[in-house]
Amino acid sequence: MSARVTRRQFVSAAASVAVLSNMPQPLSSFFPNQTTGVALTANPPWNEQGILNLANSPYAKLKNIPVHAVRIDTGFWASRRTANVENSIPSMGKLLEANGRMDNFRRLTGKSNAPQRGPVYSDSDVYKWLEAVGFTLQSGDRPELRAIAESMIKDVVAAQEPGGYLNTYFAGKLASERMEPRTQQWGHELYDIGHLLQGATAYYRATGERTLLDAGIRFVNDFLLPAYGPGPDKKPIFSGHPEIELALVELYRMTGDKRQLRLAEYVLNGDDRIALEKRDYVYHFCGKPFTSRTHLEGHAVRAMYACCGAADYYLETGDDSYWKTLNTLWSDLVSRQMYITGGVGARSDGEAFGEHYELPNAQAYGESCAAIGNMMWNWRMLAATGDARYADVIERALYNGINSGMSLSGTLYCYRNPLAFDPENGDKIRNEWYDTTCCPPNLERTFASLPGYFYSTSRDGLYVHLFHNSELNWHLRNGTSLKVVQKTNYPWQGVVEIEVSPSSPAEFTIYLRIPGWSGRCSVTVNGKPVPGGESGRYLPLRRRWTSGDVIHLDLEMSPQILEANARVVEDNGRVAVQRGPLVYCLEQLDQPAGVALAEVALLTDSAKPEQGFSDSFEKGLLDGVVVLHHEGAAVHASDARRALYFPSSAAAGKTTKVPLTFIPYYAWANRAPTPMVVWTPLLKS
Amino acid sequence: MSARVTRRQFVSAAASVAVLSNMPQPLSSFFPNQTTGVALTANPPWNEQGILNLANSPYAKLKNIPVHAVRIDTGFWASRRTANVENSIPSMGKLLEANGRMDNFRRLTGKSNAPQRGPVYSDSDVYKWLEAVGFTLQSGDRPELRAIAESMIKDVVAAQEPGGYLNTYFAGKLASERMEPRTQQWGHELYDIGHLLQGATAYYRATGERTLLDAGIRFVNDFLLPAYGPGPDKKPIFSGHPEIELALVELYRMTGDKRQLRLAEYVLNGDDRIALEKRDYVYHFCGKPFTSRTHLEGHAVRAMYACCGAADYYLETGDDSYWKTLNTLWSDLVSRQMYITGGVGARSDGEAFGEHYELPNAQAYGESCAAIGNMMWNWRMLAATGDARYADVIERALYNGINSGMSLSGTLYCYRNPLAFDPENGDKIRNEWYDTTCCPPNLERTFASLPGYFYSTSRDGLYVHLFHNSELNWHLRNGTSLKVVQKTNYPWQGVVEIEVSPSSPAEFTIYLRIPGWSGRCSVTVNGKPVPGGESGRYLPLRRRWTSGDVIHLDLEMSPQILEANARVVEDNGRVAVQRGPLVYCLEQLDQPAGVALAEVALLTDSAKPEQGFSDSFEKGLLDGVVVLHHEGAAVHASDARRALYFPSSAAAGKTTKVPLTFIPYYAWANRAPTPMVVWTPLLKS
Repeated sequence: MSARVTRRQFVSAAASVAVLSNMPQPLSSFFPNQTTGVALTANPPWNEQGILNLANSPYAKLKNIPVHAVRIDTGFWASRRTANVENSIPSMGKLLEANGRMDNFRRLTGKSNAPQRGPVYSDSDVYKWLEAVGFTLQSGDRPELRAIAESMIKDVVAAQEPGGYLNTYFAGKLASERMEPRTQQWGHELYDIGHLLQGATAYYRATGERTLLDAGIRFVNDFLLPAYGPGPDKKPIFSGHPEIELALVELYRMTGDKRQLRLAEYVLNGDDRIALEKRDYVYHFCGKPFTSRTHLEGHAVRAMYACCGAADYYLETGDDSYWKTLNTLWSDLVSRQMYITGGVGARSDGEAFGEHYELPNAQAYGESCAAIGNMMWNWRMLAATGDARYADVIERALYNGINSGMSLSGTLYCYRNPLAFDPENGDKIRNEWYDTTCCPPNLERTFASLPGYFYSTSRDGLYVHLFHNSELNWHLRNGTSLKVVQKTNYPWQGVVEIEVSPSSPAEFTIYLRIPGWSGRCSVTVNGKPVPGGESGRYLPLRRRWTSGDVIHLDLEMSPQILEANARVVEDNGRVAVQRGPLVYCLEQLDQPAGVALAEVALLTDSAKPEQGFSDSFEKGLLDGVVVLHHEGAAVHASDARRALYFPSSAAAGKTTKVPLTFIPYYAWANRAPTPMVVWTPLLKS
Repeated sequence: MSARVTRRQFVSAAASVAVLSNMPQPLSSFFPNQTTGVALTANPPWNEQGILNLANSPYAKLKNIPVHAVRIDTGFWASRRTANVENSIPSMGKLLEANGRMDNFRRLTGKSNAPQRGPVYSDSDVYKWLEAVGFTLQSGDRPELRAIAESMIKDVVAAQEPGGYLNTYFAGKLASERMEPRTQQWGHELYDIGHLLQGATAYYRATGERTLLDAGIRFVNDFLLPAYGPGPDKKPIFSGHPEIELALVELYRMTGDKRQLRLAEYVLNGDDRIALEKRDYVYHFCGKPFTSRTHLEGHAVRAMYACCGAADYYLETGDDSYWKTLNTLWSDLVSRQMYITGGVGARSDGEAFGEHYELPNAQAYGESCAAIGNMMWNWRMLAATGDARYADVIERALYNGINSGMSLSGTLYCYRNPLAFDPENGDKIRNEWYDTTCCPPNLERTFASLPGYFYSTSRDGLYVHLFHNSELNWHLRNGTSLKVVQKTNYPWQGVVEIEVSPSSPAEFTIYLRIPGWSGRCSVTVNGKPVPGGESGRYLPLRRRWTSGDVIHLDLEMSPQILEANARVVEDNGRVAVQRGPLVYCLEQLDQPAGVALAEVALLTDSAKPEQGFSDSFEKGLLDGVVVLHHEGAAVHASDARRALYFPSSAAAGKTTKVPLTFIPYYAWANRAPTPMVVWTPLLKS
């Protein structure tokens, strides 16, 4: 713990940033007519705002705490976050440079002669990376990263036009296509600005430095609001790739400018002056009233970001029609459309949701960005309700379908996150760079923001969402300072010790999450059993808390064998293995030589096959994982059964017993290319 | 049988066509420098050529017989063919007109002011329709159809340029893009001409009328051969959508012009002067040496047509490297990539083959054109070998994955042929028109050509491929006239009586196909049992045949329950029902009210569940089908099991017995929209 930066130190660091933000800001003098210095809320001040600033959101039951309030120094996420900060973010910064993403900006100010590079949405890669840096800096200063970010922000902001427009693709000859109907559909102009605002917000909340945020505000206030929106004197907006919606609401949370909230509503509602075919509003998941949606469909990331924006809008307005729609879509998500990994998006074709229960494994798309969008959406639903079912989805996506997206090294990324894989088909699943490089910085910003997801405050206390070695230093909403120290080996072990230390004794409630996956659990406070813990609920622990009080949570961590709804046809007759929040998989290279994964089944002679597991923590394997062992069978099909189709009566062939070794899904494809499968046939002997 | 046209009458009809073809042919006078009057083989004469003219193909063990040599007047295919000729072909002719496909041609000669309509490959729709008419006329004159076709041919040919080029899309402003690299990749110019040649050939073989064929020859000889091909003085060819390959070989079979055969080889080989990315030669299935292919991939129709062209090339040259590749690809087809319906192409995305064993049911593409291409390819493989395994694929595709493509009415067509369906997902599966209307005329030409697939001649006799009420009037290769009358209720019943009547007693072999699906079978000749019948083989019946000899074939027609290879994950735990050549399915509306198809399983307490079937011929149902009944179970999942994921130990819920009713797959979606499934879970009680 020696390297810890205290809250006090951090605030000092932030104060030193203020000097930096006092540096001459050439843009305002270049463009004197621009919107600058829009007042930003000081309640709470920038360095007390969380991932979302819900402090004044009337329909947010739970409020975010700032990222810096939680320190994670050891344990599961500590090593992932170290890889993120030490390897992922720096290497991605270099790759963005190497692939011309920054030269795209410099070209517009004459600082580069390089031609435009990258797809139409390439600006967003830079903004997402800046968001990752912003969240990183919220956990403590990183001068080398901040210097790069500052330099990039200068180049970005310098490329902004006096009228507020900012986009490196629709420049030069393509400037005439700005905001044209087809450009709104495919050009990602507002998507880019949405990410600019998110990146700028994270950076502002880390440093107090608002140069980039002001650029975003200029785009919205000077370019967008005067000319676009409802009414005959304005041009219509089609969001194209939802993202601006959630960004506008978050901007409103900082500026209090209701025009921004109303614009978000307008975009969520669609504008029937823009003629769309059904396939357009299906694929883009925008352009018709959000509240008319009945199920998730189309491009998964678009749908998730749209749901985020709609949930954000609800948190500010309490609009019941939005809430109903959000719940309808959420039910669709968890009952028909979500992978067991928390991944979403069944189809590569259109990166899209499929039909109900269409959840193929090898063909799964499960884009990393979509799983992240799923977590973001559920974070907003959780804030609205304090209902643990949303936290369950967050944990499922985070530990599995998101976590799988970044290699253990931190430098390779999955775009797709399939649930079965065979390298023979020629795919390389982890890559350091994609020309459409949305996923890598998205993963980076998510891991960097992670401490902000651990707790929320409510009117009457504190919600504990995630379990991990950590230290919270924050305060309740009534101002009572509070330190909460978690000691645990979660997710490898189920015991969590939570020391609660208010600055002075106070009565409040700790809402302790009992994960939906847990069977039995026991809770004690200062050694005294507390009844009523129920899986999938928060257990309210109301008492007069005194410094040093200890909550002891013991979750049963035995492996579970799960089946899927019979309508998920690819999972028929198959089971998935989960232990705690972690979904497991088989990789070919862990199984005995000569046994093909495609011929392997989990073997049981028991009605409770989960009792056949043994587990062991393998320190040297995959940065340290709990490995599961279970008896399996290699099914050697008879000749007849090796045919593509054969009579049901054909002799089955031999079966031999083989020991099976399962590893956590998130850690797959970190060694040699090898087949992988999550859903394994279950064979009853 | 009163309406039958005798062979003699037909030849008279053909002779009368000769008059028609003696009419003034304005084109040759308009364009005096064109290739005209290229000598066409008279061995055999035009009206004795089959679907393929393999008479002089050195590596064709089997030779085609002409379509008109087989009459089908009653039975299963008779009604389908009546719908084809009475409804499908006439209505599609009108739709082609209504959708501007003919005005596209007329525009080029000033006969129409309408703008170009339809996708880039729209000319081929017209040519395929003309092929359907051509095959129809081969079975007997249809003056009303012939008049329309003649008029269309005139409009088509009038649009041909003096240099031989013919394409209605790359005209006017787009003429500059002709045969440009990108146009060769996506423009379908040669694909169109391939279909022109196929259509013209069928029409020529019906009527002796060679106007359209001469246009095709002009394109090849005047436009293509002089300027395109190997060598520094010529421009390279990339076929883009294989089709020209098979057409060039068939043209060579008529002209004997080896340049056409060599051009086919060149196109099959690809030209490395055209730089391609891997995705190009994967998707287009051309552009790299055919003989370097190791598996089926990319666009399924392209792959099937490429295999047709390669097989055609082999039939002429005996090139062993082609034969090896064809067999490698065929093994891939039948062991990993073909639906039980004979359909191919797993993915909508790219209309493409998937990975090995990727055969989803609801998401199956199974384009009608691809199943037809599969049949065409196997027809060529069968000609090369006389091996019944190719005939098995032909029959499987024909009765199921092709047959499903046209409604019983003949006026609605499937583009996709999925193996599971739920109308709730919003698809309309049968439509009278598609803007890409490749499948409808492809189905029409296939049904129109069907008699040509019944028999082949070999050096020593006759092969019987398909069973159906029919009368063959043809001759052996030694000239012996031969009449073969089949009497059967196939595919509803397994008894086939075949009366063999040579004009005079002669020793030869009848190769009687014993289908691969058959279990037991019995064969007698004139009442005497013949041993040796083996499923999936031709049984050679060599004897001195005398007029009135009768072969009696009795195939066991009991329903079979089939499983799929365990690697076809969507079929795990499920079975398909087949009876004779027909694959069966469940449609929701045939099952008891209140029982959802998605919850239904085939129930058995026996190791031989196929013994639980009863069957009945339902005359009034779906134009008359044998319906199968079997006990099933409605699986009412417990609440826990209605979740998307649940512990394996969750109580299963109730099961109630329900009677299940299966109908032939080809007849699905001919009533109200309703869910359908081919692969049904098997539940052992």
